Amino acid sequence: MLNDELLMSLCISKAWEFQTLTLPNPAVGAMVVDGSGKILSLQAHQKSGCAHAEVLALKEAYYKLSSDTRILELHTSESLHNFLSKNHKNLFAKCSIYVTLEPCSLFGKTPPCATLLQTIKPKRIIIGAMENTKNKGGANILKESGIALTTNVLSHKCHQLLLPFLLYQKNKKFTLFKIAQRLNGDYKSGNISSEASRIFTHNQRSVCNHLCISGKTLLNDNPLLDSRLALPPYDNTHQPNITIFTRKTINFPSSLKIFQNKRNITFKTTAQSLSGFSIIEGGWELFQSLKQNIDFLLIHLSPTLQRDFQTQGFYFQGKILHTNTIGEDALLWIQNF
Amino acid sequence: MLNDELLMSLCISKAWEFQTLTLPNPAVGAMVVDGSGKILSLQAHQKSGCAHAEVLALKEAYYKLSSDTRILELHTSESLHNFLSKNHKNLFAKCSIYVTLEPCSLFGKTPPCATLLQTIKPKRIIIGAMENTKNKGGANILKESGIALTTNVLSHKCHQLLLPFLLYQKNKKFTLFKIAQRLNGDYKSGNISSEASRIFTHNQRSVCNHLCISGKTLLNDNPLLDSRLALPPYDNTHQPNITIFTRKTINFPSSLKIFQNKRNITFKTTAQSLSGFSIIEGGWELFQSLKQNIDFLLIHLSPTLQRDFQTQGFYFQGKILHTNTIGEDALLWIQNF
Repeated sequence: MLNDELLMSLCISKAWEFQTLTLPNPAVGAMVVDGSGKILSLQAHQKSGCAHAEVLALKEAYYKLSSDTRILELHTSESLHNFLSKNHKNLFAKCSIYVTLEPCSLFGKTPPCATLLQTIKPKRIIIGAMENTKNKGGANILKESGIALTTNVLSHKCHQLLLPFLLYQKNKKFTLFKIAQRLNGDYKSGNISSEASRIFTHNQRSVCNHLCISGKTLLNDNPLLDSRLALPPYDNTHQPNITIFTRKTINFPSSLKIFQNKRNITFKTTAQSLSGFSIIEGGWELFQSLKQNIDFLLIHLSPTLQRDFQTQGFYFQGKILHTNTIGEDALLWIQNF
Repeated sequence: MLNDELLMSLCISKAWEFQTLTLPNPAVGAMVVDGSGKILSLQAHQKSGCAHAEVLALKEAYYKLSSDTRILELHTSESLHNFLSKNHKNLFAKCSIYVTLEPCSLFGKTPPCATLLQTIKPKRIIIGAMENTKNKGGANILKESGIALTTNVLSHKCHQLLLPFLLYQKNKKFTLFKIAQRLNGDYKSGNISSEASRIFTHNQRSVCNHLCISGKTLLNDNPLLDSRLALPPYDNTHQPNITIFTRKTINFPSSLKIFQNKRNITFKTTAQSLSGFSIIEGGWELFQSLKQNIDFLLIHLSPTLQRDFQTQGFYFQGKILHTNTIGEDALLWIQNF
């Protein structure tokens, strides 16, 4: 139990590195352990349409077990599925595979992982949370194939990892409020985030449906609001649709940078009618006015101070689901409930 | 390499749970992995004078391998050393042992871990950071015994884990500034920290040499400043010596709670002359006036907001060494440099 839980915790941490970047897919982590108990690979799903966590973990493990360089040339999910199905040569017969979510059972943007796992037939599969969508049934397929199965390992933490996906499934939308601040709550003084934080934000922007800011920020900062810093597999040319939150009828000057590129720009007073994956970037003032419609709060905390700061407060009680460091900053994933 | 690094990262995270509680000893984590690669135990050193991480990990692993309940009755380091030396029956012959710091080579408050490891003779020992004190030489003892040795695994992160210990060794003191705040930097509104955060703070108070607050806080809050919430192995009856930072000559009323218990109370204007492990509990105003003499900043961040807040700012650039959650809060360990 200790062993399974500790290895699952590594899969969970890996998956949080790509939290929300996988939407509308879930964030999932996976690991392959060989017959002598050695971890061969630890991978996470990165982006909808790209290979699932299990497939990426199998790719890395296959290369380590076989030294067959052909697999390194393969990147699409389908090509990896096909290659591994044909060439696995029972290499995984003694391996254990850890995965935070029940392997998928249906053809979607990628072939089903349960079928691939059935074919390569590892000794044992250890699952964190069970699927509750149309994609459930993967565990049964595996069990019927004679693979030893352990389920619900750290299921509570695996479930927390799934929350953005589950909320998206249920409500057809997931709304994230992102705030970058210094240690004393100051979110207004200059460039606050580290390079790594900014890349993460641009990766998120490249996959979101709506990028939202306040009219005040639009006028004060005249931001580009693009994904130019995104790194592969994220698209740095993606220009997200923009929503501007404003209560007043303001004539925004057409010289503002966001008007220079072709994309949808909408003006709203609340976050209620947002759909899909929306990111709102702002400070506590904007958060206060929109908080009824926020699912998650993501704080990029810079270990710095710069100047005196006066900030608004109001009653709020969130739940910290995960923390990690990214570049020089800390990331705090907080559920609004 | 991946396997060793991932398992070492688990040892590092475990050790951070007891960061500063081990002073003047280092925070150390250790793990025993059996011949089939299964993790049998993950433990950390908890308190100076108590068993080292390796010994606690061996205790847990011995019980799992032998089902010999006699070892569960043993708690002192010496009794565990003696018992394991006599009763190991080569149970560990195929095991690997991961430890964030080179096992100690000298008799101190406990017998040397290197000698115990030499006796029980595991197959392999994997070390994070090397000792640089009089306690070095453990790795050589092990190597000469024919145990396979891998050193410097995640050595940078293992070194960061050692910083409080290394600063204490070098300067004969380590000064931690602790601040509990809400998401908007508010450190003044009511009880901010969760129960688990408060227990951690009281555990720290039970092992510190000086507990320090500002004269203003003493007058406003009339705190007990004791360790009443500390849990074993920490002493909840310990009354730490108190230092009050004040610039004015104030006659503090003798009715204040801290004067009700027998202990040293000192008044100072700076943190310069503190010695040993000192904890300063306060807000950004006090931090600003003392920051030249602060080694680490520890932020307990509550995922809440309550009210408007005005806070002082000044130039500060720290380095986040570790983040984790404790109860409902996040903990941020920040080096001041």
